[in-house]
Amino acid sequence: MPTTRSECEQYDADDPLASLREEFVLPEGVIYLDGNSLGALPQTAAGRVADMVETEWGQGLIRSWNDAGWFDKPGVLGDRIAPLIGAGTGEVVVCDSTSINLFKVFAAALAMRPDRKVVVSEAGSFPTDLYMMEGATGLLDGYERRLIGAGGPTLEDALDEDVAVVVLSHVDYRTGRLHDMVTVTELAHRHGALVVWDLCHSVGALPVHLGDCRADFAVGCTYKYLNGGPGSPAFLYVAARHQDVARQPLSGWHGHANPFAFATDYRPADGITRFRCSTPQLLSYAPLEASLDIWERVDLDLLRAKSLRMTDLFIELVDQECAGLGLDIASPRDADARGSQVAVRHADGYPVMRALIDRGVIGDFRAPDLLRFGFTPLYVRYVDVWDAVQELRDVLSSEVWRDVRYATRAQVT
Amino acid sequence: MPTTRSECEQYDADDPLASLREEFVLPEGVIYLDGNSLGALPQTAAGRVADMVETEWGQGLIRSWNDAGWFDKPGVLGDRIAPLIGAGTGEVVVCDSTSINLFKVFAAALAMRPDRKVVVSEAGSFPTDLYMMEGATGLLDGYERRLIGAGGPTLEDALDEDVAVVVLSHVDYRTGRLHDMVTVTELAHRHGALVVWDLCHSVGALPVHLGDCRADFAVGCTYKYLNGGPGSPAFLYVAARHQDVARQPLSGWHGHANPFAFATDYRPADGITRFRCSTPQLLSYAPLEASLDIWERVDLDLLRAKSLRMTDLFIELVDQECAGLGLDIASPRDADARGSQVAVRHADGYPVMRALIDRGVIGDFRAPDLLRFGFTPLYVRYVDVWDAVQELRDVLSSEVWRDVRYATRAQVT
Repeated sequence: MPTTRSECEQYDADDPLASLREEFVLPEGVIYLDGNSLGALPQTAAGRVADMVETEWGQGLIRSWNDAGWFDKPGVLGDRIAPLIGAGTGEVVVCDSTSINLFKVFAAALAMRPDRKVVVSEAGSFPTDLYMMEGATGLLDGYERRLIGAGGPTLEDALDEDVAVVVLSHVDYRTGRLHDMVTVTELAHRHGALVVWDLCHSVGALPVHLGDCRADFAVGCTYKYLNGGPGSPAFLYVAARHQDVARQPLSGWHGHANPFAFATDYRPADGITRFRCSTPQLLSYAPLEASLDIWERVDLDLLRAKSLRMTDLFIELVDQECAGLGLDIASPRDADARGSQVAVRHADGYPVMRALIDRGVIGDFRAPDLLRFGFTPLYVRYVDVWDAVQELRDVLSSEVWRDVRYATRAQVT
Repeated sequence: MPTTRSECEQYDADDPLASLREEFVLPEGVIYLDGNSLGALPQTAAGRVADMVETEWGQGLIRSWNDAGWFDKPGVLGDRIAPLIGAGTGEVVVCDSTSINLFKVFAAALAMRPDRKVVVSEAGSFPTDLYMMEGATGLLDGYERRLIGAGGPTLEDALDEDVAVVVLSHVDYRTGRLHDMVTVTELAHRHGALVVWDLCHSVGALPVHLGDCRADFAVGCTYKYLNGGPGSPAFLYVAARHQDVARQPLSGWHGHANPFAFATDYRPADGITRFRCSTPQLLSYAPLEASLDIWERVDLDLLRAKSLRMTDLFIELVDQECAGLGLDIASPRDADARGSQVAVRHADGYPVMRALIDRGVIGDFRAPDLLRFGFTPLYVRYVDVWDAVQELRDVLSSEVWRDVRYATRAQVT
């Protein structure tokens, strides 16, 4: 591990992914460690968006539904995301939001286990997953929710023959803790339950092997590590073996077997298409096309290696530079159990993060006390890790964060 | 009514809305009569989109959630649409798709009438409305669907004390037939049912008076007459008097009372916000902002007057110029019962429309035999109506549409 800034520079010089940074727009004077919340802008995205607006919409008008391939975009982009998550062609579709896609696959999974009335998730799940599960089971009768972790049972204890579906985040949005997907999926299957994986914090952060793990369903977003832009459409995965039986209740016309027959009754399309609902918000697909052009050239094993080297380095440097300054590493120290972020607790985390952002180091804050730093291997450098820790140490030791202007709490997504 | 092209030119010269046409990009050599499917590009939209991409995303990055007002956009834009549909501040939110919003308000309405197990809609509804209703009632027990029209009962006959919710399109997507909203709503209310209005083909086509009609719920899209761009986000309306009790099942974190508390249990926000679900697809909101800048300057009574004058003119000219050429007007001849489109039946409607499009007159086709022509008063001129009918007559009388290259049927949304 590098122990000086110039050693970090050497790491950057030797980094096989280093040149990818040039493919992104990054503001002057900013060290961006929040790509796990909103990824950076790919250089070619603005042009792609302008083309969709000015040529496809402005000149093509309604004709672009066919001529520019608008109708097929959800499936075409799904097939481009598939290799990033170990899925096959026809197993992924890009549409709607993560929450809505979770509702679809969760409801589909429940219907595949009609005699089981327990659903399992984690207390530490990103809350919208729990809320959408609550919304779905609220329409049905007699479901019980078991939350593992945070003083609740372990997954092993929570599983029994009453459990229909398990919904888990592959990487925890706060701590960055990584589940062992193959072991967990196997455990759930042994009890006859289906598993829905939320990949929001793992897609583009590390290789995901849905197929090899015999995963059932998955959802994820494209605006974090995938750099699809603010609120870019989410994706969902349904294992090919489930596609004939799985039915989802947001049964809009784009999931119909023959949408242009305008029939009065719903008949689901074959394959993953039945998980589409309605007209895609096309403009939000355009930057994702530009971003996936970059992803096609990324070796995911190199990505993972760099990610862990950066997060290891960050942890080491925080230990070394910020000792005695009130920080506590909240992420797993074991690299194998970690995604691509490091969370650090501080009793006054909110003003500390505000002060850091003012100095150009952008991470984010999660109540009550977590500073989150995301390390996106496509555009973060080892020197950024070094510099960020120096700023963190300076903010803490100078106590600049006690300044009154950092006290007001604003929302940060 | 004008009876020559030069009289049409005089109508355009006298048209108080004529200057609005300059605010749109319209391709050379095209008469665009499909703004009821995808509206034209506002001149300022490309710049607004570029600003969101390059400045707000590229430079602002995660900070734009607060600094650029991203988080509040669904409510802010909802309040800007409200005057177009006779709604008040805080009664409209812009999010998701029409289908998904229909699911939300329909499910909310059903829950407000728990002892009634019949839902009523129209056989001629845009099918996704029927499909989403089917998806929602499929999760629940024992619901019956009654479809009015097309050989089924009338609304009056379908209504009784078992009817929970009536879902109707204000303007029929095929024929352009306009429901009398105040009469229908009153009739449904007299039987204790709630009404969901689909405004896709009326918002921006004519003044809508949800408040005055005591409407309960409504949904609609922004990519037709509102010119929000391909797949721009939809809106939904919930009457203020229902907002405290109405609960919807797509209960994602953006509808939570305190999304940044990251609680494990869902608690709906006050007001219309509880009808939001998840992260908005922001890029798709940007052109709508540009479009609403134009709408703020539009007098809806002048809009309606021009719309009816154009559709009346089109019907008259088709009667006059295309007599004996196999056409049959499918839209109401009574202007008060018509939206802003005219549908014309022809046994070979599909190749006829293909041939027309090749001549630069863009309408669309709905199986089995409908040619649809939309008249968007912001950018269609009286001379366009004249010229379109001349082309239609020429296509029909020359029988150019019998050309083999028009035979292949492609999807057109």
